[in-house]
Amino acid sequence: MIKVGIVGISGYSGFTALKILLKHPKVQVIYVSANNTQGKISDIWPTLKNQTELICDKLDINKASQLCDVVILAVPHTVAMTIAPELIKAKIKVIDLSGDYRLRNKTDYYKWYKTEHLDAENFSKAVYGLPELYREDIKKAQLISNPGCYPTAALIGLAPMITAHSDDITSIVIDAKSGVTGAGRKVTQGLIFAEVNENLKAYKVLNHQHAPEIDLYLSKLISKNIHVNFVPHLLPINVGILETMYIHFKTHQKLDEIQKIYHRFYKTEKFVRLYNLGEQPELKNVTGTNFCDLGLAMNEEGNLLVVTSAIDNLMKGASGQAVQNLNIMFGFKEEEGLL
Amino acid sequence: MIKVGIVGISGYSGFTALKILLKHPKVQVIYVSANNTQGKISDIWPTLKNQTELICDKLDINKASQLCDVVILAVPHTVAMTIAPELIKAKIKVIDLSGDYRLRNKTDYYKWYKTEHLDAENFSKAVYGLPELYREDIKKAQLISNPGCYPTAALIGLAPMITAHSDDITSIVIDAKSGVTGAGRKVTQGLIFAEVNENLKAYKVLNHQHAPEIDLYLSKLISKNIHVNFVPHLLPINVGILETMYIHFKTHQKLDEIQKIYHRFYKTEKFVRLYNLGEQPELKNVTGTNFCDLGLAMNEEGNLLVVTSAIDNLMKGASGQAVQNLNIMFGFKEEEGLL
Amino acid sequence: MIKVGIVGISGYSGFTALKILLKHPKVQVIYVSANNTQGKISDIWPTLKNQTELICDKLDINKASQLCDVVILAVPHTVAMTIAPELIKAKIKVIDLSGDYRLRNKTDYYKWYKTEHLDAENFSKAVYGLPELYREDIKKAQLISNPGCYPTAALIGLAPMITAHSDDITSIVIDAKSGVTGAGRKVTQGLIFAEVNENLKAYKVLNHQHAPEIDLYLSKLISKNIHVNFVPHLLPINVGILETMYIHFKTHQKLDEIQKIYHRFYKTEKFVRLYNLGEQPELKNVTGTNFCDLGLAMNEEGNLLVVTSAIDNLMKGASGQAVQNLNIMFGFKEEEGLL
Amino acid sequence: MIKVGIVGISGYSGFTALKILLKHPKVQVIYVSANNTQGKISDIWPTLKNQTELICDKLDINKASQLCDVVILAVPHTVAMTIAPELIKAKIKVIDLSGDYRLRNKTDYYKWYKTEHLDAENFSKAVYGLPELYREDIKKAQLISNPGCYPTAALIGLAPMITAHSDDITSIVIDAKSGVTGAGRKVTQGLIFAEVNENLKAYKVLNHQHAPEIDLYLSKLISKNIHVNFVPHLLPINVGILETMYIHFKTHQKLDEIQKIYHRFYKTEKFVRLYNLGEQPELKNVTGTNFCDLGLAMNEEGNLLVVTSAIDNLMKGASGQAVQNLNIMFGFKEEEGLL
Repeated sequence: MIKVGIVGISGYSGFTALKILLKHPKVQVIYVSANNTQGKISDIWPTLKNQTELICDKLDINKASQLCDVVILAVPHTVAMTIAPELIKAKIKVIDLSGDYRLRNKTDYYKWYKTEHLDAENFSKAVYGLPELYREDIKKAQLISNPGCYPTAALIGLAPMITAHSDDITSIVIDAKSGVTGAGRKVTQGLIFAEVNENLKAYKVLNHQHAPEIDLYLSKLISKNIHVNFVPHLLPINVGILETMYIHFKTHQKLDEIQKIYHRFYKTEKFVRLYNLGEQPELKNVTGTNFCDLGLAMNEEGNLLVVTSAIDNLMKGASGQAVQNLNIMFGFKEEEGLL
Repeated sequence: MIKVGIVGISGYSGFTALKILLKHPKVQVIYVSANNTQGKISDIWPTLKNQTELICDKLDINKASQLCDVVILAVPHTVAMTIAPELIKAKIKVIDLSGDYRLRNKTDYYKWYKTEHLDAENFSKAVYGLPELYREDIKKAQLISNPGCYPTAALIGLAPMITAHSDDITSIVIDAKSGVTGAGRKVTQGLIFAEVNENLKAYKVLNHQHAPEIDLYLSKLISKNIHVNFVPHLLPINVGILETMYIHFKTHQKLDEIQKIYHRFYKTEKFVRLYNLGEQPELKNVTGTNFCDLGLAMNEEGNLLVVTSAIDNLMKGASGQAVQNLNIMFGFKEEEGLL
Repeated sequence: MIKVGIVGISGYSGFTALKILLKHPKVQVIYVSANNTQGKISDIWPTLKNQTELICDKLDINKASQLCDVVILAVPHTVAMTIAPELIKAKIKVIDLSGDYRLRNKTDYYKWYKTEHLDAENFSKAVYGLPELYREDIKKAQLISNPGCYPTAALIGLAPMITAHSDDITSIVIDAKSGVTGAGRKVTQGLIFAEVNENLKAYKVLNHQHAPEIDLYLSKLISKNIHVNFVPHLLPINVGILETMYIHFKTHQKLDEIQKIYHRFYKTEKFVRLYNLGEQPELKNVTGTNFCDLGLAMNEEGNLLVVTSAIDNLMKGASGQAVQNLNIMFGFKEEEGLL
Repeated sequence: MIKVGIVGISGYSGFTALKILLKHPKVQVIYVSANNTQGKISDIWPTLKNQTELICDKLDINKASQLCDVVILAVPHTVAMTIAPELIKAKIKVIDLSGDYRLRNKTDYYKWYKTEHLDAENFSKAVYGLPELYREDIKKAQLISNPGCYPTAALIGLAPMITAHSDDITSIVIDAKSGVTGAGRKVTQGLIFAEVNENLKAYKVLNHQHAPEIDLYLSKLISKNIHVNFVPHLLPINVGILETMYIHFKTHQKLDEIQKIYHRFYKTEKFVRLYNLGEQPELKNVTGTNFCDLGLAMNEEGNLLVVTSAIDNLMKGASGQAVQNLNIMFGFKEEEGLL
């Protein structure tokens, strides 16, 4: 049994990681912590009554290091980079759900997260935990930088096209829609029920911190600069991200050829499901699962491809993917605990 | 044109009062204030862009007194009693939406609102602004204590029965369900979207501050102590209160007789709508309106009456009723601005 | 591996049974059918893509009998009683989710389901599948009549009190609130999104077919007639039932004594969770689980007990409980596949 | 007082028209009809109890013609064109909310509505009822073809840019999101609560019948063929449309110049509200109003403009706009009954 710690158990992604791992047959959650709340997990998350006797600690990195083989960091960005280095020094594997180790570049980090990066050493060594693109690196990683929720849906939806036809692409627009847990469990006026319910709005238009993350990992795929136009919207639902992506081409493409490219790219991937032409993903089909569902459509002229990509932001977009990474790191079946 | 001020414009009931009064043909809103936000109303409430040029002030009681004929206080309890006395001293009429002037008794106030009452003088003089019961007093009132949202639905639903048959009643249970704006615009973890959505819970079970208010005004009706058992629930919707009330009798009653009693009690009331036997009120029928909808049912034995009462908590349960009171105080048609 | 069939796979409870059983380590779902739709399960329920290769059949009872050890009937009442007898004749165990075998009395069945009962023989032999009350009978049962969703929450919430103090009870009121899947997947105007959303209403007031089911099994507990007053409401959420139950006493009772009675009654029950005094169940804590959560409160006089009982109507209120029964019938751990 | 008839009162847009007109000071609703339901309006729409004594008729065109000055057709497409010609023959003005008179071309109509057009004569004479573009024609119109909900938001959002810079535009993508009442009050499995709630999906991707309507009226603006790529999504809310529109340019543009263009275009329009740069429309700001709210943003390169456009689909997207048109046709203030 692998011994796992979860830091940041009072948030939605920490909770989701715990819920998955309590049913995982090869893993024991041995340590959980949070900074603003302590006590029995079943008091913090009453849905887990009768399912765990775990006690939530105020974070003690030494204790976590002594007890755990791997620690999942489910804390906000800027906090993760203060915890990860010590765990890594103690030879503990780390899976970080925050944005702290994703951008690989101090200037970009400062631009998007408004603070200096404090852990240069690990910043460059972290492995980006998107198994569909980086499985081999994940196997050997000490520190996993788990992808952002929006980037997960975007990269899975765009990677086949970028890999196959980047020269023909003139523009990429991502119109993204996310349920409120994508913003975490923040207590702000904009997130109270009556402000979100029966509402919809775009926010951080062309200015969201996940855009440079998408750009970076698309560019790495083909060693060429790719830039996406990213517009997120806040949906009045709890979980789920649907991204409708518009890819403009110089020339005319055939939809059935593109469908074949996607099929080949993902045919061995357990957690990517390509829909038949004419069908479209729906959020409810991925809610509570670790799947990323993809659908394709093309305009009559053949110069605009529409890719729709749906995930559960707390599962494939955060903690489900973290467990998938954990499974890969420790040689378990990749879907263990997730199907 | 009557000149109206609204204090507490950044909350939902202040906003609702303003929205109603902007369309009211006999009224001009001349002063609005809030303590945590200032500036153009159309910036605070963008839905009102192009509809008003009002500027939100930090509360200046002198200014309000000089400008206004009547002031609506849409501030939290404990705050209202610090503002009302000065306005009243300046001969301004006041309609207070808070709980500060409802209980009529310092001991009860302290018990339920956890602080000493600061305005003994007006506490005893305030008129309880439920037009269906106190219309004549409201006409002459200087200070209206606008009823709570739960008490409004409860008192309208129970008054005919209490008046006609109080001696036969052995127990009253009120199972109340309210949308989230009933809690105001508070920013707390329990009110963020993902905690409320797809959820339901009872809270303050048999221990809500609106219960003594219901007891008091039922008891006044017949000069006899009446006590209700009150259990509120939080609904995942924006507005609306539905109360399902269970009245146990010693003897057996006939439903059609009771339906007649209710019909007689409310036949001249514009804002109370009694449903036919076999029909039930629904929240959506009162949403956005100042109506209170009532439905009656009886068990086969004839010893349990079920009264359902539905209102929009921001309208008949708060600001709509405030405007109804204002209309009565100034001799306008009671439904002016409300239909 | 036990071989299971599910008849009625296109509805929510058939789907939920399948979803649970696909992860159950001791069970193989070998046959699924529906009458209005056929083809790949992953086309009917796209969320199950990549998780099953099952094909949905038009019901063939012979085929089902040959393939299965046990069949779960997830079809409407009046249909179940036309299928169950043949399966039972073929020595197949049957778990029926409909109301067809619950009332035990042809007159009552006719009164509430508006049609003659067609299977007198099995009507009287069926075992009521509420494990907390009938575990020993379930072990030996050929035909399980799975409880209704409302009765499950009601009976678990009331059984300890009825058993301990029935003589002192003068009245029981059940104010029940249910998410829309409680009505099945019916396509009617009253269930379309815009009619349910932001709405709440009582329906079938004191006249719901689950009331006599509650009466019957409460009465059986103490061999004395018990009658409840039952008022259901339709909530704008997908799943979950919360019942707020009001029990009036002749004498005065002590809440901590009653809490002890409940604690003793359920202390060995895996799927019943009693909340501490002062805490209340919430729907979100039971959503997606097989738990029934209970909370208790008492008025100051000590003559009114408020019991709140929360379940997921598709889990403990239908298919989760069906799997719990299946586990008991086949000697598996009771929580297998459910935790 | 102008006498108005509403045909199709049992649907959401017929109801919304009635609700607006009951408060309209210059109009009397004198005739209402529906084909599937008859009787008192207050039984069909209980929210209107105490507000109207109107009786719903089975459509009698002669009666409607004798009673009314103008008839609003709130019936499905293919039905409207069987009613309008007779009313027009009787010199009654007609405002048609359906798609029947929008496309102006029998081939296009057949392609998108799958049936032959039956009223060639009026097809070419109808005036497209978008006041911001066709106010002068509306004043003299006999038959108004009220715009579709999606086209209303799209055309208002795109018209200034098309008018000013059509030569520089290389591609237009409209990512549209609509609440469920956009689909009318249809009773289909896809629209029942549990299928829509907590879900989101794209539908009719690049293949919606409103796309050719947008193309047609954009093209008319500049006498040049314009083609948009239109992808609608179904939101789990009752009302509201938000369209996020992506306009690609050949050259680089300046956002503040474009903001000025929009400002000039709409500065005298009562029902179009342009947000300041950096602000974004939200559905809740337009819900229940006749406003169309617009926001602009640009990417850093200056070659992609993002226009967001928000309306209430039943108000500005249907019946609110119908009343706006009625006001123009009869010389009333354009906002009469709408503010």
